Amino acid sequence: MSLSYESAGVRYDELDAFKRACQKAAKTTADLLTAHGYSEPAETRGESCYLMEAEDHFLAHVEEGLGTKNLVADAVYAQSGKCFYREVAIDTVATIVNDLITCGALPTSLAMHAAVGDSSWFGDAVRTQALVDGWAEACRMSGAVWGGGETPTLKGIIEPQSICLAGSAVGRIAPKSLRITGEAKDGDSILFLASSGVQTNGLTLCRKIADNLPDGYATPLGHGDDRTYGEGLLAPSVIYVKFVRECQQRGITLNYVSHVTGHGWRKLMRLDEPFVYEITNVRPEPALFKFLMEKGPIELREAYATFNMGIGFAAYVDPKDADAALAAAQATGYDAWIAGRVHKDGDRKAVVVPSLDLTFGGDTLQVR
Amino acid sequence: MSLSYESAGVRYDELDAFKRACQKAAKTTADLLTAHGYSEPAETRGESCYLMEAEDHFLAHVEEGLGTKNLVADAVYAQSGKCFYREVAIDTVATIVNDLITCGALPTSLAMHAAVGDSSWFGDAVRTQALVDGWAEACRMSGAVWGGGETPTLKGIIEPQSICLAGSAVGRIAPKSLRITGEAKDGDSILFLASSGVQTNGLTLCRKIADNLPDGYATPLGHGDDRTYGEGLLAPSVIYVKFVRECQQRGITLNYVSHVTGHGWRKLMRLDEPFVYEITNVRPEPALFKFLMEKGPIELREAYATFNMGIGFAAYVDPKDADAALAAAQATGYDAWIAGRVHKDGDRKAVVVPSLDLTFGGDTLQVR
Repeated sequence: MSLSYESAGVRYDELDAFKRACQKAAKTTADLLTAHGYSEPAETRGESCYLMEAEDHFLAHVEEGLGTKNLVADAVYAQSGKCFYREVAIDTVATIVNDLITCGALPTSLAMHAAVGDSSWFGDAVRTQALVDGWAEACRMSGAVWGGGETPTLKGIIEPQSICLAGSAVGRIAPKSLRITGEAKDGDSILFLASSGVQTNGLTLCRKIADNLPDGYATPLGHGDDRTYGEGLLAPSVIYVKFVRECQQRGITLNYVSHVTGHGWRKLMRLDEPFVYEITNVRPEPALFKFLMEKGPIELREAYATFNMGIGFAAYVDPKDADAALAAAQATGYDAWIAGRVHKDGDRKAVVVPSLDLTFGGDTLQVR
Repeated sequence: MSLSYESAGVRYDELDAFKRACQKAAKTTADLLTAHGYSEPAETRGESCYLMEAEDHFLAHVEEGLGTKNLVADAVYAQSGKCFYREVAIDTVATIVNDLITCGALPTSLAMHAAVGDSSWFGDAVRTQALVDGWAEACRMSGAVWGGGETPTLKGIIEPQSICLAGSAVGRIAPKSLRITGEAKDGDSILFLASSGVQTNGLTLCRKIADNLPDGYATPLGHGDDRTYGEGLLAPSVIYVKFVRECQQRGITLNYVSHVTGHGWRKLMRLDEPFVYEITNVRPEPALFKFLMEKGPIELREAYATFNMGIGFAAYVDPKDADAALAAAQATGYDAWIAGRVHKDGDRKAVVVPSLDLTFGGDTLQVR
């Protein structure tokens, strides 16, 4: 039987009911911004970053968490003695700031939330220092100050040997014209920025696959990659702040961007307005994804519906700006390429990958 | 044997080493603010709220968590069927915003972090709705918009039946003169604002006491209070935003304020500069604290060193402003009173409560 995300034990229905209840209640508090000289801009609810509008700027606020990736780091540490807490710290910051920049905000400050089940977690000086160093390094990659945080011991809430990593960012958009809204247009070019691996999504499934392998995370990736499965999974996420900042500085308009996370390539159609996203320039899957499909096994369709498959960030730009956006990405050190095109086809919403014979209809993605 | 916080299993030494490493690394990132038009003001590190300084305002950022109070709510829910998740949601917001206002910032937006061990947590519609309603209610009490959040399922990190509640706030101080700095002076009046009970600190010890009682949280509080121990513990925290805002609007300068949390009354000497804080107007301990001292048993000194003992927030004001600050507190619905006075006594740092024969020296508090 082929593995899927649902079969790995993540159920979205109960969680989604809660999310909807939160969104409904949260909406009723928007008027509280008035006393602060802010208002809630149209279409910020349901986006990856919450925005508040003032006369000359937007204030941005994101709270996000790592998910379960540190469980992989724990297992690899136990098995091989290699500590990847620098990497998971970068991952945690990446999930926060890569959400924040989707609206065009740049992160100003980052705060860490690191809750442990037992304070002895911090007794491992190597791991502790790696976490601290990684967080500071990620702040530098994001151009944001490390502004504090909270490190509680929560016995009975956090598992005894574990840590829950999350945090928040504050950002700004100024001038306001730099806001990225859902302005994708028929004919827009789709720019892909490479990921470093699974980054922070699909880890529950990845862990299940490790459990079924005789050598677990020590299994070689193969396919021309000489890392182990664990090392491949734990490559730190790419932080895409510099790309967005560089486009702003070069005056390149990003019509829309998508942080490709949970739901894999279905996230490309995150925008409410219906478009068809045709991906024509598909790179071969990186070795890690080939390994996942083979060892799961995971069918091609399920793999692209779950993992980022080598793409961490997508930007939709006017075709006249495509080369400039690509150059901005490359100049700031990203592996990027023009991957396809946005089409208007009436009410049809879909991600289409002809070379892989894949089509995801709009009904396969509910993120709001 | 008398109970103490250390004997309840909370060890601060390993945690504090981590906190110091974080603070050291965080400090090195301050220069990243320059590109955003901000700088790091003097003396924001180590305070309860992180501030960023611009020409005409300060931006404020806090990340905080509830601690283990929801474990009390879980036990009471299991024993009595009474759900207190509205209350713990308010507690979570209170820990965040009461830290934020200590620098004079008012919270603009709040984000929730609610991580569960199993998505079935959200299957209890009564509890889920109480959590949502409480969070929205607390946002209204704080005058801050509910700007989003994150609700991950973290199997293997969060205990299966549990939830980790935390979050963050963004705030502002404008004009900049409203910033509260450490400007306490010899002769300042000390204003106390009442708490609703233990609020969010000392819960590990409270849970240990419940474990030793035959009727646990169902034990009547006595001392003229007809609630049970569980009900007393779960009274929602007081949110002190309105007091700070009202003082700002009335032009009353708060020289310094302290959110009285962990370390109990020792928190009154949070300020670096040495002062003697003499508390002369001491109210009898509320029933809940009498109960805790009796059932622990907890000695008086340990009780005042651990719990807030009925005081949630303290403000130090010039004696000429004391009546006005008291009136501002009362006008916004707080139970408040002038409790004592700040003295300069050379390098001596202490909290002194003559009527209780209590003195806490400066060496009993390390919060930085």
